[in-house]
Amino acid sequence: MIKAGIIGGTGYTGIELVRLLLMHPKVELSVVTSRRYKGEKVSDVYPHLFPFTELEYEDVDTKEIAERSDIVFVAVPHGTAMDYVPGLLVTRGAKVIDLSADYRLKKADYERVYKRKHKDREEREAVYGLTELHPEVAEANLVANPGCYPTGAILAAAPLVNSGLVNRIVFDSKSGISGAGAEPSETSHFPNLAENIIPYKITEHRHVAEMRNELGVNVSFTPHVIPSIRGILTTAHVFLAKRKATEELETIYMQFYAGKRFIRCREGTPSLSAVRGTNFCDIGIAVEANSDRVVVISTIDNLVKGGSGQAIQNMNVMFGLDEAEGLWFPGLVP
Amino acid sequence: MIKAGIIGGTGYTGIELVRLLLMHPKVELSVVTSRRYKGEKVSDVYPHLFPFTELEYEDVDTKEIAERSDIVFVAVPHGTAMDYVPGLLVTRGAKVIDLSADYRLKKADYERVYKRKHKDREEREAVYGLTELHPEVAEANLVANPGCYPTGAILAAAPLVNSGLVNRIVFDSKSGISGAGAEPSETSHFPNLAENIIPYKITEHRHVAEMRNELGVNVSFTPHVIPSIRGILTTAHVFLAKRKATEELETIYMQFYAGKRFIRCREGTPSLSAVRGTNFCDIGIAVEANSDRVVVISTIDNLVKGGSGQAIQNMNVMFGLDEAEGLWFPGLVP
Amino acid sequence: MIKAGIIGGTGYTGIELVRLLLMHPKVELSVVTSRRYKGEKVSDVYPHLFPFTELEYEDVDTKEIAERSDIVFVAVPHGTAMDYVPGLLVTRGAKVIDLSADYRLKKADYERVYKRKHKDREEREAVYGLTELHPEVAEANLVANPGCYPTGAILAAAPLVNSGLVNRIVFDSKSGISGAGAEPSETSHFPNLAENIIPYKITEHRHVAEMRNELGVNVSFTPHVIPSIRGILTTAHVFLAKRKATEELETIYMQFYAGKRFIRCREGTPSLSAVRGTNFCDIGIAVEANSDRVVVISTIDNLVKGGSGQAIQNMNVMFGLDEAEGLWFPGLVP
Amino acid sequence: MIKAGIIGGTGYTGIELVRLLLMHPKVELSVVTSRRYKGEKVSDVYPHLFPFTELEYEDVDTKEIAERSDIVFVAVPHGTAMDYVPGLLVTRGAKVIDLSADYRLKKADYERVYKRKHKDREEREAVYGLTELHPEVAEANLVANPGCYPTGAILAAAPLVNSGLVNRIVFDSKSGISGAGAEPSETSHFPNLAENIIPYKITEHRHVAEMRNELGVNVSFTPHVIPSIRGILTTAHVFLAKRKATEELETIYMQFYAGKRFIRCREGTPSLSAVRGTNFCDIGIAVEANSDRVVVISTIDNLVKGGSGQAIQNMNVMFGLDEAEGLWFPGLVP
Repeated sequence: MIKAGIIGGTGYTGIELVRLLLMHPKVELSVVTSRRYKGEKVSDVYPHLFPFTELEYEDVDTKEIAERSDIVFVAVPHGTAMDYVPGLLVTRGAKVIDLSADYRLKKADYERVYKRKHKDREEREAVYGLTELHPEVAEANLVANPGCYPTGAILAAAPLVNSGLVNRIVFDSKSGISGAGAEPSETSHFPNLAENIIPYKITEHRHVAEMRNELGVNVSFTPHVIPSIRGILTTAHVFLAKRKATEELETIYMQFYAGKRFIRCREGTPSLSAVRGTNFCDIGIAVEANSDRVVVISTIDNLVKGGSGQAIQNMNVMFGLDEAEGLWFPGLVP
Repeated sequence: MIKAGIIGGTGYTGIELVRLLLMHPKVELSVVTSRRYKGEKVSDVYPHLFPFTELEYEDVDTKEIAERSDIVFVAVPHGTAMDYVPGLLVTRGAKVIDLSADYRLKKADYERVYKRKHKDREEREAVYGLTELHPEVAEANLVANPGCYPTGAILAAAPLVNSGLVNRIVFDSKSGISGAGAEPSETSHFPNLAENIIPYKITEHRHVAEMRNELGVNVSFTPHVIPSIRGILTTAHVFLAKRKATEELETIYMQFYAGKRFIRCREGTPSLSAVRGTNFCDIGIAVEANSDRVVVISTIDNLVKGGSGQAIQNMNVMFGLDEAEGLWFPGLVP
Repeated sequence: MIKAGIIGGTGYTGIELVRLLLMHPKVELSVVTSRRYKGEKVSDVYPHLFPFTELEYEDVDTKEIAERSDIVFVAVPHGTAMDYVPGLLVTRGAKVIDLSADYRLKKADYERVYKRKHKDREEREAVYGLTELHPEVAEANLVANPGCYPTGAILAAAPLVNSGLVNRIVFDSKSGISGAGAEPSETSHFPNLAENIIPYKITEHRHVAEMRNELGVNVSFTPHVIPSIRGILTTAHVFLAKRKATEELETIYMQFYAGKRFIRCREGTPSLSAVRGTNFCDIGIAVEANSDRVVVISTIDNLVKGGSGQAIQNMNVMFGLDEAEGLWFPGLVP
Repeated sequence: MIKAGIIGGTGYTGIELVRLLLMHPKVELSVVTSRRYKGEKVSDVYPHLFPFTELEYEDVDTKEIAERSDIVFVAVPHGTAMDYVPGLLVTRGAKVIDLSADYRLKKADYERVYKRKHKDREEREAVYGLTELHPEVAEANLVANPGCYPTGAILAAAPLVNSGLVNRIVFDSKSGISGAGAEPSETSHFPNLAENIIPYKITEHRHVAEMRNELGVNVSFTPHVIPSIRGILTTAHVFLAKRKATEELETIYMQFYAGKRFIRCREGTPSLSAVRGTNFCDIGIAVEANSDRVVVISTIDNLVKGGSGQAIQNMNVMFGLDEAEGLWFPGLVP
């Protein structure tokens, strides 16, 4: 059994890791930390996890977490993960998957984009954990798990970019509010979000840096929050350098994602319910007549493929397991 | 023109008063207070009110508010209204409508139910402002505007109680979340409320005291929050001392509410959309076969008939206007 | 492997059976029928099931279904199941779980309550499949799977009734709209249901017959539809013959449900998210001070414990498996 | 008083016309037609309109409608309006506002875009009723009221296009489901739309023809349905031929819409609640750093400014009234 620790086990990312890892046949949860809930049972704070675990939240130091774990998931806010990661890697060689933004970019890029000093003294060789695109995850000691928006956006566009067909992309993304976390806020206040859709950081969301890094073309990005709990639907407006027929484009997608079991490119428009609670990314394509514009729609569950599920997929690859171990189940429809 | 002041103009009750009073043909807003937003334009804080008012939030003392107003609406939290009301009444004789719970009960009852000391040294003669049941509002200087739940519940049951037919009532109420106010909270956090319905204070909500006061029979009450912004639907399970046919009951309602224009007792099940944004209370009746149980359903908009609208209805009556002045418009359907 | 057939595989009950049975380690789907989608792949009609099954919908006769199956789930509308059940039982002795109302009541009761002639010539010995209360499911050839409302209501009240403490119960239930099925209707039309809660069959819903059958006390029932997809929260207003302290009542529940792993009686108010997608029934109790009223709140997922999940739980018991086989996973929170 | 008739008074557009016209101080409803509900009171079919009108639905011929009306609103489905309009115009010279698509395009364009024969033998001189952009509405006998999507999209982009700054625009629009009408459908089925967002006619929605007509630049358009009742938020991704600073762009908008009272260009991001139930269009601008992309966000209520409200605004202009007559009230917040 793989002993897995979680730093930050009370946010949405943390409890989704707990939910999924408890069902994983090859994993045993070794430690879950929380300062606020130290000493309380996980299943008292989150009753849906009763009686699946007897674990209590602990507040232990980085060294001990590493010693008790083969792999540690860091599920704390951006800017805080870098307080833990160096210690985890040094101590004993526990593998680390960081779900924050702290290791997704080179330090210099991070500091420019996030407008804060990076606290890690070293430039770590983190692998960007978009599993389908980065097989080198298998050899990594540190995986930087992608942001939720970049996961849906990059997967939607990568085949076209890879084919050299793309001039420019505008990602117009729509996310459930769980992406904003478990803490109540103005945006998550029900009367503000219900019967509404809220664009935010309209031309300046930081996730665009990951998209540009991975895709290397002219990318713009505008996110919106929709009155839903889970899910991100990304509408990728892709401007092609060279027009292609629908069938040609479909072939490009089928070939690019051949063997990638969590990517489903099928007829019909992707929906959030088909991926709800799962690690799938569903993709659909529509070509505009007499135009260089192609619209690619992708859907993911932001907390699974866009977060904790992909982290576990990466763990599976890092430990030589089937990438789908513990993640192979259909979505909650309706 | 009636000069109307509002103490506490930034909560949902406060801005609903502003919205409705700005459209009232006989009223001029004289002052709207807010400590937090002092000096800011009301329409900058609440853009939907642009360009309907040029008013700025002020932070002025009670005396000045009273002097600048013919009537003052007190829209501050429970326990705070009593800091203002005595001063308003003394100063110059401005009429007062208090939308908090502070003057709905006798002081001794208040202290027992709300478990706090009442700060007003006097026992004020406040009229309970359920307009349809208390014509003495016309003569009042101080009106205690009813709670949102009691408004829907009492209006649903009053005709049967008045007819001496009732043994016992269980009010099972379902409210939109706007009743909990403009401040984000655990309950109003979208992922907690969406796809859910939340019972709370299941056997101990304080509004039951108002219901018992007004109805004088054996009353129980359990509230729930539904994933909606506005509206309260109350399911009144009424146990009759004497069974009656549906037609007889309908006649009782028609007669009891004859001439009450905001009460609509019609065929079909009341819906929240038909009263959305309005001062109406819709009522429907269903008799259980071979049983002493009658179910009365009432619907209101919690912020209008359950709050600011009824307050304005009371103001109309206090100033000798048509009770519907400024309030006579249909609901927002769909 | 148990070979399981499903008659009626396109409604919400049917596809939920497919979703759960595909993940069941001891079951193999043998046949799924649909007239409308005959010849189409299940995963083309319901893409969330791709690539979990290669099955195609078939339109075959009852005899063949029975021959290809060890157990058959009948997931067709009320009044239609009785067209299949006799043939299934005769043919070869396949076991049957009927998810409709057709075998939940004695024929005479059925005809009175459902106001239609029962087409089965025999009075079948169907076991009422509320698994926790009917261990004789283990020996049954025909299980009548309970209605969604009765499941939540009966489980909430059974311990108190069993203790002889109950005078009367009013069940005020709130259901997600998926209970009304996959066909669009006036009630399921988004603009009608959003921002609303809809009481219906207010004093005359037929499920009350099952509740009375099982509980044997004075029961009333009023259902409402809430703007949610899944879940039933039942507010049971129980009037006690003899008052008890909260701790005594909790003990009654703990003892009554000792060893019943899908019933969770814990502190705090049950929520729909904790049971979302699962076979759990969560129960909480609140005693009203100075009153004979106790409020019991139960939550279930209407499509799982209130339908397909409980059917599978029954199947497990009928085949001597652990009752939780294939059903032991936590809810989707948030 | 202006006598106004409505052909098609039961769809969402029709009853929104009734709701607004009943409150209009200069209008009297002369006739409201419905075949299905002929002889029934409008307020029995739509209880929220009780007791605001005693009108009954009628099924009378075009000639009579025209004779009884100074203006006729045609609120029937696309392809059907053209059955009425010629007769209305001929008969007696009643003015006509058609809310369908039938007269928004030249006949040849209509036939190409809508892929059906236009049944009107004449090429009518209909004025495109985007009131702010077409003052010639004042002289019109026939106004083609714009589509809901084009209203939000064109108003968002017109100032930039008019300044000659625009290379290309992608409109990514998000609409409440009421735009799809009062008839239940797969898309409006609550379990399909809740917790979802549904892109449709992704590269081929017919409304793009109106946008191209009015704007005359390279326009693409992708619509989505969100789980909300009312409102359209349009995210206009505008690619500029010449970059401009935010302040310059704001000045362009302020000047372009000077005196247009229903257009609010203010700081902050527009929301659907601020325009809910109203005739406003709120507009906000965000410039992307180091890019030719500007994002313009507009919000409207699809049934008011995107339909019936704008129709009444046009009527006001056609009859020499203040354009805001009967439409000057703030949105329903929260």
